[in-house]
Amino acid sequence: MADATRLETFPNPHPDRHYLIEHHVDEFTSMCPQTGQPDFATIKITYIAAATCIELKSLKLYLQGYRAEGIYYEDVTNVILNDLVASCAAAWMLVETNWTVRGGIHTVIRAEHGVRPS
Amino acid sequence: MADATRLETFPNPHPDRHYLIEHHVDEFTSMCPQTGQPDFATIKITYIAAATCIELKSLKLYLQGYRAEGIYYEDVTNVILNDLVASCAAAWMLVETNWTVRGGIHTVIRAEHGVRPS
Amino acid sequence: MADATRLETFPNPHPDRHYLIEHHVDEFTSMCPQTGQPDFATIKITYIAAATCIELKSLKLYLQGYRAEGIYYEDVTNVILNDLVASCAAAWMLVETNWTVRGGIHTVIRAEHGVRPS
Amino acid sequence: MADATRLETFPNPHPDRHYLIEHHVDEFTSMCPQTGQPDFATIKITYIAAATCIELKSLKLYLQGYRAEGIYYEDVTNVILNDLVASCAAAWMLVETNWTVRGGIHTVIRAEHGVRPS
Amino acid sequence: MADATRLETFPNPHPDRHYLIEHHVDEFTSMCPQTGQPDFATIKITYIAAATCIELKSLKLYLQGYRAEGIYYEDVTNVILNDLVASCAAAWMLVETNWTVRGGIHTVIRAEHGVRPS
Amino acid sequence: MADATRLETFPNPHPDRHYLIEHHVDEFTSMCPQTGQPDFATIKITYIAAATCIELKSLKLYLQGYRAEGIYYEDVTNVILNDLVASCAAAWMLVETNWTVRGGIHTVIRAEHGVRPS
Amino acid sequence: MADATRLETFPNPHPDRHYLIEHHVDEFTSMCPQTGQPDFATIKITYIAAATCIELKSLKLYLQGYRAEGIYYEDVTNVILNDLVASCAAAWMLVETNWTVRGGIHTVIRAEHGVRPS
Amino acid sequence: MADATRLETFPNPHPDRHYLIEHHVDEFTSMCPQTGQPDFATIKITYIAAATCIELKSLKLYLQGYRAEGIYYEDVTNVILNDLVASCAAAWMLVETNWTVRGGIHTVIRAEHGVRPS
Amino acid sequence: MADATRLETFPNPHPDRHYLIEHHVDEFTSMCPQTGQPDFATIKITYIAAATCIELKSLKLYLQGYRAEGIYYEDVTNVILNDLVASCAAAWMLVETNWTVRGGIHTVIRAEHGVRPS
Amino acid sequence: MADATRLETFPNPHPDRHYLIEHHVDEFTSMCPQTGQPDFATIKITYIAAATCIELKSLKLYLQGYRAEGIYYEDVTNVILNDLVASCAAAWMLVETNWTVRGGIHTVIRAEHGVRPS
Repeated sequence: MADATRLETFPNPHPDRHYLIEHHVDEFTSMCPQTGQPDFATIKITYIAAATCIELKSLKLYLQGYRAEGIYYEDVTNVILNDLVASCAAAWMLVETNWTVRGGIHTVIRAEHGVRPS
Repeated sequence: MADATRLETFPNPHPDRHYLIEHHVDEFTSMCPQTGQPDFATIKITYIAAATCIELKSLKLYLQGYRAEGIYYEDVTNVILNDLVASCAAAWMLVETNWTVRGGIHTVIRAEHGVRPS
Repeated sequence: MADATRLETFPNPHPDRHYLIEHHVDEFTSMCPQTGQPDFATIKITYIAAATCIELKSLKLYLQGYRAEGIYYEDVTNVILNDLVASCAAAWMLVETNWTVRGGIHTVIRAEHGVRPS
Repeated sequence: MADATRLETFPNPHPDRHYLIEHHVDEFTSMCPQTGQPDFATIKITYIAAATCIELKSLKLYLQGYRAEGIYYEDVTNVILNDLVASCAAAWMLVETNWTVRGGIHTVIRAEHGVRPS
Repeated sequence: MADATRLETFPNPHPDRHYLIEHHVDEFTSMCPQTGQPDFATIKITYIAAATCIELKSLKLYLQGYRAEGIYYEDVTNVILNDLVASCAAAWMLVETNWTVRGGIHTVIRAEHGVRPS
Repeated sequence: MADATRLETFPNPHPDRHYLIEHHVDEFTSMCPQTGQPDFATIKITYIAAATCIELKSLKLYLQGYRAEGIYYEDVTNVILNDLVASCAAAWMLVETNWTVRGGIHTVIRAEHGVRPS
Repeated sequence: MADATRLETFPNPHPDRHYLIEHHVDEFTSMCPQTGQPDFATIKITYIAAATCIELKSLKLYLQGYRAEGIYYEDVTNVILNDLVASCAAAWMLVETNWTVRGGIHTVIRAEHGVRPS
Repeated sequence: MADATRLETFPNPHPDRHYLIEHHVDEFTSMCPQTGQPDFATIKITYIAAATCIELKSLKLYLQGYRAEGIYYEDVTNVILNDLVASCAAAWMLVETNWTVRGGIHTVIRAEHGVRPS
Repeated sequence: MADATRLETFPNPHPDRHYLIEHHVDEFTSMCPQTGQPDFATIKITYIAAATCIELKSLKLYLQGYRAEGIYYEDVTNVILNDLVASCAAAWMLVETNWTVRGGIHTVIRAEHGVRPS
Repeated sequence: MADATRLETFPNPHPDRHYLIEHHVDEFTSMCPQTGQPDFATIKITYIAAATCIELKSLKLYLQGYRAEGIYYEDVTNVILNDLVASCAAAWMLVETNWTVRGGIHTVIRAEHGVRPS
């Protein structure tokens, strides 16, 4: 698995307000655990920070950790969600992965942690 | 009819969470039951897995089974929904088929199984 | 008026499920009742079938019946809705007409029959 | 101000149904009251008619009446809404104006009259 | 920090109505507080005015005040929201900043003040 | 055939210069000579005027004359070209017709008169 | 191979002029000769007719003849070109096939017969 | 006519090089000389400067001078070209006007002065 | 370097005709030789085959060989061109690589072998 | 002026081939020399390297040097071209700057050095 200890956070500069942070990751690649072939995806991470925010460069390095990992679409989406929530204790988070075409089919996975505050 | 026994599943790696899986099928073709002419569609399958997920390659092969089938738009959409739900016992599923133009009209069918969990 | 008796239906193959049918009509033309000039529109018909579905070719021929009709935007949208609902006794239907530019203004009309089932 | 008496109406051909009418005005221009420079916008007018509908050509002529008017974005949007509601006693109306770029900023104003019927 | 005293307002010409004002800022630049490198964003400001509206030219000049500021994405979004709300006492306001790509990731921040009136 | 005598011209205001005039006709309809079904196309007319230019309203009325004509794609494109060239003695003209989908195929025809001056 | 004898022609209504005919085929499918998996493409056929034009319905039926054929991209593109040129003795023809993604790669083939007349 | 004396120029900072300058005017309006109705266009001006360049603000003010002018599409395009060439003695210039839809037809005019240097 | 011996070819089925083959590679990744950070690109390969064509699956595997390579944009583009030309002795070939944004700049490289036959 | 000595180069890895290098700069800002207001542009730099290529990070830093410069569109485009050509002695170079809207007009400048090798 990618190394979740690479994830760093910084204090939320406005913890008194529930505001949305979206990171659009345009460059993600992992490996198919069955065939060993590379997989490619874009990822959208949306969350409402609690006491800390995810530091952007550490997020990039963490996600690069999947470059040599064999892992299924459904699994990696949930693992990323779990790791990110664990790192920053977000009040709410949504991770969406959008994979390139395989066999004429492209796949999108959406996993959510917690209930989005109104 | 296409052979629903071709559909295979694998254990949901994160059954404790209600997350969304979308498969966008860019290449689908069946036959018009009246004229014998080919029909073409794209299909979007969205579901929330229960204990199992639909295996992607088996989904592709199952859908290829319609290549020589004469079947109406409204019928095939519901039959695919029924077959997929039966194969994986999804908590919720939506099947949308989007057909190419015939006589200056293009048609979209949307069929849903169960109630989408909040 | 266009001849509503041209509309044909066939038995709904899945009457037990509330599923959506959308027909996107890319080629519609009628006449302006004031000036006699041709009008052009695209039409989107969305409905939930009850016991019967609208047959596609008969829908095309029915709509062609407006080619020589002088009729206002607001009127033709509602008349089409009334005729289609009468032909198939839909549980719910929405007709949207989208007209090309006249005098720097283009117009969209949306008329709905019944309450959309949840 | 533009002359609201130019606005004409015609009897709603289907007053028994709450249907939506949208007019997209692609060509609108007024003047900045401070600088005297021309302003340009597109306007979207959406309403549910009561007993009468707004006649399209009279709408065009009414809106042309702003060509030499110096008036603020916020003001003209509300004045148009007030004039149109007064002319046809609409059950509900929304006027949206979308202005071209000034100083690297483009502005959209949305003003609504009444409560949209369900 | 940018100078919030630059922000000017003018009386809301239609204070009796809850209407929406959107300013789309296409040209915004600040500095990364860590690296000193320039950051670029587009900003969307949406609000419902109370007694006063934000004057457009003063908004432009206020935002230009960030050109030499080193400030984080999350921080500047909330500071702009706070400054604008303070200047015009808006009933409700939403500020969205959309930043260009850094390290293969682009980021969007959305911060909201108050509850949007229905 | 449509009535070419409807076509009117006006004196070219700048006959000393070879400049291009393009008319994009968004609304054209004729009939299929075999099936009697309506055909729809957009048409692009590009020319370099000699002593006269084609008057726009007369062009519209001339093209409306095909509404009840049964005529093939290849034929109508060339007939329009011939009629327009005859009406205004253009130095050079290109007529392109772009037809909506029939049987999964859409067709474009391009016919040119004379040699485009450099 | 698909049956080239299905192709029919009709007399060119304007043989005295070199004009372009383009057919855009949105729905084409054949089979991979190695894997037996279906392939999907769009095809653009552009030609200058000599004495005859290709009849549109016969073109559709001819192309449907590849639905069960195992044939390579490079081969089928050239075979279609050869068959169409043989059927109508076109002065010039270009066939372009644009195939859906396989293994993260999509392929386009362009084959031309003769020299395009100026 | 618009006042060509409003046009101002400034010395070309790099007269030794043939480089291209394009001005895209998004907001132009004049009047139809027959009906008195407003016309709207976008204009693209491309030129190679000789000793002087056209000053941007004076270009804007000059073009605003057509706001109350009744003038034909073909005429105004050539008059603008003549005025601009006269003001700056450009080595080469192209003026393209693109008009909004009238009667289902939109029109583009392209007029060129001189021969574009290689 | 990636292993060029992985590239396989098959006999050109139509060697008598100069036709174009384009492969659009949507998923390419290599490493920056300075920073060790991953780079991402799309690649377009266009060529005219001589006696042999490049086999698609071997092309995919060859390109995957850059996944762990540190190599500059300019270099990898030319190396791929050299390797592909060497493998199939193409009459003409063009390789274009289009890289994702780095530091607000995205880069495209185009390298060509031989002279494109007319 | 921005400091051209910041520009660095590296040896062209394939000096024997005339290949194209394009850098698309998405984030450029300078100042208007008259008003002191910020200007924003995207820049496309295309060149054929001789013995050396422009190093990407040094290009970014060089272009950031205009952030506080007051300079006209026409001037900065040519100055950048001159500086880049001087730094790498390119065989051919084209610099295109595309500026955001000012007064309803947006401007594009294209300056070229040398003759593009065939």
